[in-house]
Amino acid sequence: MSKKTDILILGAGPAGIITAITARRYYPEKKITVLKNVEKGVVPCGIPYMFSSLKDPEENKLGTAPLEEKNIGVDVEEAASIDRGKRSVKTLSGKTYVYEKLVLAVGSHPIVPRIPGIDKKGIYPIKKDMDYLKAAIKDVKKGGDVVIIGGGFIGVEFADEISRIKTLKAHLVEILPNLLANSFDGEFSQLVEDRLKSCGVDVLTNHRVTGFTGEEHVKSTVFNNGEELKADSVILGIGALPNTKLAEDAGLDLDKGGGIWVDEYMRTVDQDIFAVGDCAGKKDFYTRKYAPVKLASTATAEARIAGANLYNLKVVRENKGTIAVYSTYVDGLVLGSAGLTEDSAKKEGFEIVVGSAEGMDKHPAAMPGANKLKAKLIFSKQSGILMGGQVAGGMSAGEMINIIGMAIQKRASVTELETLQMATHPYLTAAPTQYAIVLAAQNASDKMN
Amino acid sequence: MSKKTDILILGAGPAGIITAITARRYYPEKKITVLKNVEKGVVPCGIPYMFSSLKDPEENKLGTAPLEEKNIGVDVEEAASIDRGKRSVKTLSGKTYVYEKLVLAVGSHPIVPRIPGIDKKGIYPIKKDMDYLKAAIKDVKKGGDVVIIGGGFIGVEFADEISRIKTLKAHLVEILPNLLANSFDGEFSQLVEDRLKSCGVDVLTNHRVTGFTGEEHVKSTVFNNGEELKADSVILGIGALPNTKLAEDAGLDLDKGGGIWVDEYMRTVDQDIFAVGDCAGKKDFYTRKYAPVKLASTATAEARIAGANLYNLKVVRENKGTIAVYSTYVDGLVLGSAGLTEDSAKKEGFEIVVGSAEGMDKHPAAMPGANKLKAKLIFSKQSGILMGGQVAGGMSAGEMINIIGMAIQKRASVTELETLQMATHPYLTAAPTQYAIVLAAQNASDKMN
Repeated sequence: MSKKTDILILGAGPAGIITAITARRYYPEKKITVLKNVEKGVVPCGIPYMFSSLKDPEENKLGTAPLEEKNIGVDVEEAASIDRGKRSVKTLSGKTYVYEKLVLAVGSHPIVPRIPGIDKKGIYPIKKDMDYLKAAIKDVKKGGDVVIIGGGFIGVEFADEISRIKTLKAHLVEILPNLLANSFDGEFSQLVEDRLKSCGVDVLTNHRVTGFTGEEHVKSTVFNNGEELKADSVILGIGALPNTKLAEDAGLDLDKGGGIWVDEYMRTVDQDIFAVGDCAGKKDFYTRKYAPVKLASTATAEARIAGANLYNLKVVRENKGTIAVYSTYVDGLVLGSAGLTEDSAKKEGFEIVVGSAEGMDKHPAAMPGANKLKAKLIFSKQSGILMGGQVAGGMSAGEMINIIGMAIQKRASVTELETLQMATHPYLTAAPTQYAIVLAAQNASDKMN
Repeated sequence: MSKKTDILILGAGPAGIITAITARRYYPEKKITVLKNVEKGVVPCGIPYMFSSLKDPEENKLGTAPLEEKNIGVDVEEAASIDRGKRSVKTLSGKTYVYEKLVLAVGSHPIVPRIPGIDKKGIYPIKKDMDYLKAAIKDVKKGGDVVIIGGGFIGVEFADEISRIKTLKAHLVEILPNLLANSFDGEFSQLVEDRLKSCGVDVLTNHRVTGFTGEEHVKSTVFNNGEELKADSVILGIGALPNTKLAEDAGLDLDKGGGIWVDEYMRTVDQDIFAVGDCAGKKDFYTRKYAPVKLASTATAEARIAGANLYNLKVVRENKGTIAVYSTYVDGLVLGSAGLTEDSAKKEGFEIVVGSAEGMDKHPAAMPGANKLKAKLIFSKQSGILMGGQVAGGMSAGEMINIIGMAIQKRASVTELETLQMATHPYLTAAPTQYAIVLAAQNASDKMN
């Protein structure tokens, strides 16, 4: 069977969906087809919350109704190969799709380290597949000790969720000295570690897993220091790698970071093939180096660029580089990070000045529900331009990091942030005299003068 | 008695305090003196919350401890006149202060309309004075019908707070067809009106007060349509006027809006006298016209400029114009506004394109505590530059409006907002596919193409 379409999109995660919807806006006459490789997808960032916060894991399903509403075809098919000469894609089931423009939105796959015992039952890498996840959750929830490997965002969020289930004991294992070390400096990581411990999570930093014991099913995790930890189940959250096999087999270039090489318009070396999301290479906004960012929000920003540029380049839509903007939630503690951390900026060789501030997130401090709020900003020393920021506080910190993200994208300077005009309100923010972004900028400015 | 100081600041509200603290940072050797005209000040934005949200009105006091810590003198004195020739200020109590640099941070006074019966007991204009407010609150809380006149921020917030007190019935009176009409377009005003009504507030728009009945104490409010409304107490929240008498008497210029004329560095026509906060004139960021903004956050931004520029101009600190950035809270509904509204932009003659979006503020929508979120953005049609925005949602909308405020200050374009990189998280924000600022920008972009 051979099917003809104008725009063919491989993948129905956030990158694929938004590419399709954007393409429909810009190219209303084109036939658009999306291939999804799992029957039922999931909202990627919602996966940890399928354990406890959501009543039913099904509430986290990622449907394709928004596509069908816009007259975009959706087939459950997995692509097996691309024939660039014939402009066609062959699927595992033997179907052929002929395209004018092809978009690779094929995502990433979880890293599964080759350590002894990794294939035992009860060890779960995180796959974005509803049926797989439902079965995994059911099994983990049977009770006992859950060992979560990897202290990045996924690991931290799983630990928080699992700590709320009384029949489970969560252990969080991280090879580095700090949790979330790629996105936060030590003083912020410490807040997360403290909060997880107060929730009863057993946090094991500086621990490297060397193997798993058990017959068919995992029984324990073994560490490099010889310690052994009982494990009724194991969740692997140590990262993901871009899915590039299809692209490589078709002769497309990869970039130095291992993602599919793309230009500023998300085009691969083949001008009719685009790549977006986790599978596509990314360049950091400031360092211009490969940025191993796997974020749905980054994916959708790229998808909006690709979808617009499929047939004609809309010049203004160039990708200016990737700014990792993250937020996370641990038992009411909210952390956000945007751009470079102090550690990463120094490692990269930037001469920087750091400003910090602490206060409350409502005012006066006696307002109901007030939380401590902490902010840190990283500026280029000579130019005074904002390069990164971190916040920790209550729920409002979730959008606060997006103020900092906006400021980075628009290259705000320390003096602009010191004299920032912002809304303040007793229930919603710090006092205008104490607004953390302003005070952190002042603190940096004091050090510059 | 004559006292010599280097920097003399009249007023100890947010504008005065921040001018003093900023001056201390930039001019560590100077002697700084602040005169406050009330024994105990209050946090201006916290005044409505002294009724119910705060357990004790005293929790809303605005202290001067941060000044004393920084070796800034504070005297309780009210300035009576300025002698520019002698560079001195005489106070009501007969003291004289000699200055090198003088900062007027003397605030505003509540408008008290000259209508029959306005002087009766039980009618309270809002003064920023702890003792006055405590007495007023005690009297209002005696019970019965409270008529709040003025449907701006203060009035709306008083109505919300008073509606939580079971022995009181709140009536909110607004002369215009919509509440918050200066800062929000009709569809947002309607959300506030609906929420207040659901809290039991009697909302009377299109009502003009023509008088008050009662012997010594107010008994009822009379409207232009002849209706009469029982009033056990009345709160006046119809706005404030800049305190300019001192400045006028000293021969300083006023601007066309009635505030003290200042240049971009907050200097009056006398280069040794600065003015900041409610008493100082403001120019709108886009229209360059007089902007009647009375916001503590605006005051502090101005104070940070004035404090730095007292002795030498720090060029980078020029005031680029006032962007009103507001947020408010009504029974869990949060609204924010930044820059021009659709109505105000049209009235001003701007050719605009408006984009709107609605969604949820967490994702998936089943996440606990998810609220509806609505956003509207106003762009210049030709240039695509953001001129204003409004949001309505849950608590996160309080910082979300500051993302829009930052985007206005940095003149972000519609395409930059369409491809914005932001943090999204199930507990904290909409899905990346549904982020309201991005979708509203897309909606505007669709209309431009």
